[in-house]
Amino acid sequence: MESMVVHQQDIGWTDLGGGVSRRVLSHTQAMMVVEVRFDAGSVGSMHTHPHAQSTYVASGAFRFTVEGETAEVRKGDAITFAAGVPHGTLCLQAGTLIDIFSPMREDFL
Amino acid sequence: MESMVVHQQDIGWTDLGGGVSRRVLSHTQAMMVVEVRFDAGSVGSMHTHPHAQSTYVASGAFRFTVEGETAEVRKGDAITFAAGVPHGTLCLQAGTLIDIFSPMREDFL
Repeated sequence: MESMVVHQQDIGWTDLGGGVSRRVLSHTQAMMVVEVRFDAGSVGSMHTHPHAQSTYVASGAFRFTVEGETAEVRKGDAITFAAGVPHGTLCLQAGTLIDIFSPMREDFL
Repeated sequence: MESMVVHQQDIGWTDLGGGVSRRVLSHTQAMMVVEVRFDAGSVGSMHTHPHAQSTYVASGAFRFTVEGETAEVRKGDAITFAAGVPHGTLCLQAGTLIDIFSPMREDFL
């Protein structure tokens, strides 16, 4: 598959528990776009994965820890980090992150 | 550089002409997040590049042509395509695209 166009209303949410829900939008082998919705106070625990990641803050506010550094980000801000970099987040104000992975995450399908 | 956190208010826009402006947000070697703002009626001409791309529609509405197929997308929709796939867009309603490239685009720095 060389390309994929996805209308968000066609995709259902997966409840991950703890105030976090996820839905996979578009993907090819090389990249995957994932929308992650957080309630205020919910947490994405520190973890690593063998995919490079970019995160765009579509709404809300979040405290991120990436590579041991902590930063607060809000709607319109962006983060990128290499494969294997430890990262986690605390949602300060309910919102949505757009996480893009390269290559795609087979474990999310 | 293994990670980068960017606050959007710290980054200036580059006017590309024709009602299109761009600013590079975060990047590492593996990925780059770019914000592209379109006036209604402005065009991203058909082109290709040797980077895989994902596009998230942050606002507005766009008619995309990807791999010869045309689709209309709106706020919240997403597109992903492989390296080398021809693509272009017409902005139907003023808005902003978040383009993510893998690997990063050296030509945008």
